[in-house]
Amino acid sequence: MPVKLRIPKPEELLPVAGVKLGTARANIKKPGRRDLLVVDLAEGSRVSGVFTKNRFCAAPVLLCRERLKADSAIRALVINTGNANAGTGEEGLKRARQTCSELAGLLGCEENQILPFSTGVILEPLPVDRIIAGLPQCISNLHPGNWFDAAEAIMTTDIQPKALSKEITIGGRKVRITGIAKGSGMIHPDMATMLGFVAFDAKVSQKQLDELVVDAANASFNRITVDGDTSTNDSFVLISSGNSPEISGEAFEKLKAAVIEVSVFLAQAIVRDGEGATKFMSILVEKGKDEAECAKIAYSIAHSPLVKTAFFASDPNLGRILAAIGYAGVDLDVNNIEVYLDDVLVAEKGGRAASYREEDGARVMKQEEIAVRVVLNRGAAHTVVWTCDFSYDYVKINADYRS
Amino acid sequence: MPVKLRIPKPEELLPVAGVKLGTARANIKKPGRRDLLVVDLAEGSRVSGVFTKNRFCAAPVLLCRERLKADSAIRALVINTGNANAGTGEEGLKRARQTCSELAGLLGCEENQILPFSTGVILEPLPVDRIIAGLPQCISNLHPGNWFDAAEAIMTTDIQPKALSKEITIGGRKVRITGIAKGSGMIHPDMATMLGFVAFDAKVSQKQLDELVVDAANASFNRITVDGDTSTNDSFVLISSGNSPEISGEAFEKLKAAVIEVSVFLAQAIVRDGEGATKFMSILVEKGKDEAECAKIAYSIAHSPLVKTAFFASDPNLGRILAAIGYAGVDLDVNNIEVYLDDVLVAEKGGRAASYREEDGARVMKQEEIAVRVVLNRGAAHTVVWTCDFSYDYVKINADYRS
Repeated sequence: MPVKLRIPKPEELLPVAGVKLGTARANIKKPGRRDLLVVDLAEGSRVSGVFTKNRFCAAPVLLCRERLKADSAIRALVINTGNANAGTGEEGLKRARQTCSELAGLLGCEENQILPFSTGVILEPLPVDRIIAGLPQCISNLHPGNWFDAAEAIMTTDIQPKALSKEITIGGRKVRITGIAKGSGMIHPDMATMLGFVAFDAKVSQKQLDELVVDAANASFNRITVDGDTSTNDSFVLISSGNSPEISGEAFEKLKAAVIEVSVFLAQAIVRDGEGATKFMSILVEKGKDEAECAKIAYSIAHSPLVKTAFFASDPNLGRILAAIGYAGVDLDVNNIEVYLDDVLVAEKGGRAASYREEDGARVMKQEEIAVRVVLNRGAAHTVVWTCDFSYDYVKINADYRS
Repeated sequence: MPVKLRIPKPEELLPVAGVKLGTARANIKKPGRRDLLVVDLAEGSRVSGVFTKNRFCAAPVLLCRERLKADSAIRALVINTGNANAGTGEEGLKRARQTCSELAGLLGCEENQILPFSTGVILEPLPVDRIIAGLPQCISNLHPGNWFDAAEAIMTTDIQPKALSKEITIGGRKVRITGIAKGSGMIHPDMATMLGFVAFDAKVSQKQLDELVVDAANASFNRITVDGDTSTNDSFVLISSGNSPEISGEAFEKLKAAVIEVSVFLAQAIVRDGEGATKFMSILVEKGKDEAECAKIAYSIAHSPLVKTAFFASDPNLGRILAAIGYAGVDLDVNNIEVYLDDVLVAEKGGRAASYREEDGARVMKQEEIAVRVVLNRGAAHTVVWTCDFSYDYVKINADYRS
């Protein structure tokens, strides 16, 4: 079960002015489940996104990149689950365009004003007929209050829907930020993909939005790892809707903080719902020379199967953490490093701390949420990476899937 | 059980002139098992080694590096299992020196003519008293015919001993090459470490030996991965003994080929005995621009938990292999790549091969030994990496250990 991940109540998810959502049961892979989502955006909305760096990226990712680059005044998003439309070559692009074209006809806009997203099985042809057949159902229930349904419609192997809203006041005006995400690994079996969508009803310039999506991704979705695999379809999209005047300066900073807060919640939710996860771990690396070396060490720990299985076993196996620091590829003097499990100093001066008692380590390791803190003592940079443990169920989920 | 790993018969392991081995049951960690090995080298033997790049490297690794650099005319090796003497700071160095000093006294040489090696639990003080107490027993049974006992004495969580001999003829003279190794992951739980020792009774110059140890490591132990973790103690040592004249030219090339053959066997044996392994996989990457990019892609596949669990499940899950190629960090046009499972073309032109039939993939995936071949079609470089699958037992072994 997900680690301390609260299921949002539908009524807690606040409508965002200018954003309507409609879902359908299109029988894309499994009959009867919500598997298609259309997000309709009011004229004048601005959209920006960041996408997977995987070279085998999916057809919809290619189209999204192209259309956002061309500044096509995006009017709608269409997201299907059950099929990733990845590793599908020219035919995959054709089918993604066909979906967009059909939706554009129904909404009365141009095909290139639609952004397509897909998540699910890789290497299978997109069942475009079923998707097209489901679009009218999505359009018939477009409504600003459908965020919970939308969060459900994009799930694949997720156990719980992931969504959060936040309301802030900027210049006396209420601004709402609502986001949804899916994914329980950076990549799933064939059910690939992390998807995140965050909308807010405040107007910012395209330049601000493009910077904000990068900043928010770097503070959230780029800080998580379940298994180190990177999907062919990963996408994170920010939507600025509403007709207020453009905000800037301090007001923008306030908005930015709230957008990042929602993004971090969604990113952590993906880890909490990680495949087979029983523990949520924050890996903090502090006092490094630069952020890059902090990140190398944090990911080295977060990706180590030996560290992750030790956390699963609640075993304060310090040697594995030290070894992962040592092979991170950073030129370190290990005698200057301190390592903490929560508040317990476990290692210093190149070995186990003299003050360390096994029962203190064991106490921390039993918790569902654990912070591993590595202090490098050679600079002012720091970073954090969130990850989960590695359990029997991870192997079970990934070995049994498809069979 | 190890994947197709034949246990050597003691009589198949050929003595190497100038090399005597003695073992003891020193009760270092578990009572009653062979856990201490002394290798005695005739005067004039030459030794070279390569060691872990882990910054948290163990005390014995530091001493080995120092003594080999100083060209100390090495006369013996002492290897204990049960304790890695890693993450033990100054005290660890002191205890390793103490072991060497004691052995030097018994053998009548200098302390710096001894190379120490340790494998086992990290962060625990080396039980130097028990090791010293075991040394006389080792010395009393020093014998050229003890290679099998030696292979057993260095095991930790290994299921089977790993050893091989080869006899070649150089210039009408028989040359014997015998090697032993231990390890069933690049790092084990706390039972860290890959150790490899190969000796041959032919004389080569120190320069040749130093080059040969690098070449042999690159062709063997540096081509394997079980879980991507790198131990604090990994060591690979070549020993040239015997009093024949120094060989060079074609004769040296013949020797080199045989040393590499023995090293490759030992390295593959470690993978075959990988923790929880049920499959042995060769990941071949061909026609790349350079070896570095081939290696990046090969390791990306070999390290992917999703690929490894798919092999465990005998599931021809091509999407996972393609995704791992795509996120390897190599700037690729995926449309030019071909991917094979053994002789079956599974992917080309950015997606599944038109000729591919699921039953062909399924047939290959059921085998105990599988080759994954990625053809990049953009150069003449190639590489290979050997790895194993990722099973329930991997998690079990690593989660249960210590508990």
